[in-house]
Amino acid sequence: MENFTFYSPTLFAFGKGTESDAGKYVKRFGGSKVLIHYGGGSVVRSGLLDRVKASLDKEGLPFIELGGVKPNPRSGLVYEGIEIGRKEGIDFIIAVGGGSVIDSSKAIAMGIPYDGDFWDFYQGKPVEKALPVGTVLTIAAAGSEGSPDSVITKEEGMFKRGAGSDLIRPKFSILNPELTQTLPPFQTASGATDIMAHLYERYLTNTKDVEVTDRLIEALLLTMKHETPRVIADPDNYEARANIMWAGMVAHNNTCGVGRSQDWNSHVIEHELSALYDCAHGAGLAVTMPAVFKYVMNHNVMRFAQVAVRVWGCQMDFEHPEVTALEGINAFQSFLCSIGMPKNFEELGAKQEDIPKLVDVLCHGDGRQGSISGFVTLNEEDCTKIYQMMI
Amino acid sequence: MENFTFYSPTLFAFGKGTESDAGKYVKRFGGSKVLIHYGGGSVVRSGLLDRVKASLDKEGLPFIELGGVKPNPRSGLVYEGIEIGRKEGIDFIIAVGGGSVIDSSKAIAMGIPYDGDFWDFYQGKPVEKALPVGTVLTIAAAGSEGSPDSVITKEEGMFKRGAGSDLIRPKFSILNPELTQTLPPFQTASGATDIMAHLYERYLTNTKDVEVTDRLIEALLLTMKHETPRVIADPDNYEARANIMWAGMVAHNNTCGVGRSQDWNSHVIEHELSALYDCAHGAGLAVTMPAVFKYVMNHNVMRFAQVAVRVWGCQMDFEHPEVTALEGINAFQSFLCSIGMPKNFEELGAKQEDIPKLVDVLCHGDGRQGSISGFVTLNEEDCTKIYQMMI
Repeated sequence: MENFTFYSPTLFAFGKGTESDAGKYVKRFGGSKVLIHYGGGSVVRSGLLDRVKASLDKEGLPFIELGGVKPNPRSGLVYEGIEIGRKEGIDFIIAVGGGSVIDSSKAIAMGIPYDGDFWDFYQGKPVEKALPVGTVLTIAAAGSEGSPDSVITKEEGMFKRGAGSDLIRPKFSILNPELTQTLPPFQTASGATDIMAHLYERYLTNTKDVEVTDRLIEALLLTMKHETPRVIADPDNYEARANIMWAGMVAHNNTCGVGRSQDWNSHVIEHELSALYDCAHGAGLAVTMPAVFKYVMNHNVMRFAQVAVRVWGCQMDFEHPEVTALEGINAFQSFLCSIGMPKNFEELGAKQEDIPKLVDVLCHGDGRQGSISGFVTLNEEDCTKIYQMMI
Repeated sequence: MENFTFYSPTLFAFGKGTESDAGKYVKRFGGSKVLIHYGGGSVVRSGLLDRVKASLDKEGLPFIELGGVKPNPRSGLVYEGIEIGRKEGIDFIIAVGGGSVIDSSKAIAMGIPYDGDFWDFYQGKPVEKALPVGTVLTIAAAGSEGSPDSVITKEEGMFKRGAGSDLIRPKFSILNPELTQTLPPFQTASGATDIMAHLYERYLTNTKDVEVTDRLIEALLLTMKHETPRVIADPDNYEARANIMWAGMVAHNNTCGVGRSQDWNSHVIEHELSALYDCAHGAGLAVTMPAVFKYVMNHNVMRFAQVAVRVWGCQMDFEHPEVTALEGINAFQSFLCSIGMPKNFEELGAKQEDIPKLVDVLCHGDGRQGSISGFVTLNEEDCTKIYQMMI
C-alpha cells in the first residue's frame, strides 16, 4: 500500500426530510450570506428550492439565487457566479442539485477569493483558498457531495477538465433519497453507471496487495448490481434509493481508493464524448468502459478475472483466466444495457467520423502531450482503436 | 434505512514514517502546548516517543508527558491527566499508543474544560466541549483513532463504560503499519478480533434492507479473514499489516454502520470479563461472541446464514438455514482459535463461580435496570446462560 492522507470532513445528513436542516448547517459552518446555486426547473417545480429557502429564512440567513446550471457544466456560468458572489459579499454557497450543480458551485467557491482566472485550477494550479460549500443532493451519481473534485467544461475549445483539493470538499451534504424518486429512469441509470465507473476507476490499479480497498470496491459494486434494477423497476423504492445514495458517496469520497494507483482513463476518454455531444456522462461511460476494459485487459488479466468472479458471479476458468476476465466485462456491459444504458456510438448519438477530432482533443487539447495515463498509458493510436471499438 | 448524520472529520496520515509529521499536524489543528499521553515502555524502547517529541520540537511546540496507561484504562490516570492538563495550560493532547491510550486521552480531553466529574460523560451526559486530540497508533484494534468513542474503567466498582461524541473524534490520526510489526502475535490477534467484533456488532441489526452497509461490513470481515493469518505467520508482512490497519479504522468510524440499529451486546458482556480479570479485550471477545451468537441466532437465522455464506464460504442449506447459520458461527470460532485466541473461560482465565457476580454487575451495575439491549434484549437469566456457554 502506498502512503496516503485521507481527509473527509464533510458532515452528511442522510434521510427523509433532511433538506429542512440546510439553514441550520449553513449557520453551523459559519455562513452569513448565501448563494443558492441550482440547475433547471425541477428543483423549482418540486418545491425543493422553496424548502431550502425557508430553512435559510428560519435561521435569518440572507441569500441570492443563481440557477441555470446545465449537465456538463460550463465555465460561462462559473464566471457569472464569481462576479455575483464578489459583488454581493457571499460567504457560503449551497448547491441544490446533482454533480453538475455541485461542481459549478465548487468552481465558484474557488474563484471568488482568487485574483486570477479560476480555470487555472483546472490546469493543475493548487488551490489555496475557497469559500465553504454545502450541498442538497438530488441524484446519486457524481459523488461530488463527498469528493474533493470538480469537473467543468471550458467553452472556448470545449475542454472538459477536473480540479481537486480538500478545500472544496463540502462542509455538509444533505442526502435525502426521496429527492431522487422523481428522476426519469434514464437519469437514474446514468447516475448508477457513473457510480460504478468511480469504483472501476479505483479498482484498476497497479498497486499490489491492496485487499481492503479491493474488497470495499467489490462490496459497493455488488450493492449497485443488486439495487439498481430494483429502482429501475420501482422508482419509489426508498430503501433501494437509500442504498444507492450512500454507495455513491462512499464510492467517491476515496475511502475505498486510498493507498493505490487509480485509472481514470475511462473518465477522460468519456469526457470528450459528453463535451462534444452533450450526452449524459453516465451514458457515455456505459459505452466507454467496456471498450477500454477489453483494450487494456491483458495488462492484468487476473484483476479482471477477480472482479468477474467476486462481483459478476462468473466461475473462474483456472486454465484460461482471460476467458473469465472477458466474461466479467461482458456481464458488466449486459448489466448496463439491462438498466437502459446505450452500448455503442449510435445509441449514444456519437459519430464515427468525429473520432479523429475526439482523439486530437483527448491527447493534445489543453496542454496534453499526445497520451493519457492511468492503469495503462494510452497514445493516439490506442485511443483511436478504443473509440473504434465503441462503434 | 434509518435517518442518520455521519461526520468523520479526522485527517488520516497513513504509511511508513508518518509519525515524523505529528508536530506539523498539531500545529495545523491549532495546538500550542501539548500533553503526550502513552502507556508503558514499548513506545519508549522503540524510539517512537523520541520521534514524536522531535517532531514537536521541530515545530517549536512545548509539551509535557504522562505515561502509564494500562490496557483497560482506568479513571485514576484520567483524573491525574485532567489535573496536569489544567495546571500546565495544555491545549492539545497526543495519544501515542493503542485504543487504551487514545480512550484515556479522549477522557482527559473532555475532562479538562468540564467543571464536573468527567465520569458524567460515561453515564450518558452529552459532551459540550473537549480539547483536540491527535493520535499516533501502535496497534490495529480498537478503532478509536477514527471513532467518536472512549471506554474507561472506573476503579470504584470496576465499572467499564463508554462515552461518545463527535467532539472527541481525533483531529488527526497517524497510522504507520510498521509500528505494529513488533507486536507479539497474541496482541496482534486480539486486535484483529476486536476489529471483527466491531464489524459483527454492526452486522447484527434489526433494520431491514441495508445492503450497502451489509456489503461493506462483509468486505472488511473478508479482509480480516484473509490478512490476519498472514501477519500471524509473518509479523513483518507490511502489506498485510497495512490492510488490517485501514480495515480497523473503517470498521469503527461508522462508514459501515450508519442508518441501521446495531448490537454491542457482545461488547458489554465482554467488558465485565476484562474489567474483572484484566484480560485482553479482544481475547475476551473471542470467547464471548460465539456464545452470544449461538444464543441469539434464532432471532434472525437468515442474517447469520448470510454472513456464513458470504464471509465464511459456507454452502447455503436452503432447507435448513439454521444449519448454515451455525456453521458460520463455528467457522468464525475456529478461525479465532487458529490465530491463537482462547475459546473458553479456562483459556481466558475466567472462573465459573464468578458468573453471578459478572451478571450482577452487567445487569445492575452503574444504573442498569436488569437487562442489556441490542440485537436482542437480554435479561439476567439470558446473560447467565451466555456466560455458562463459555465454560
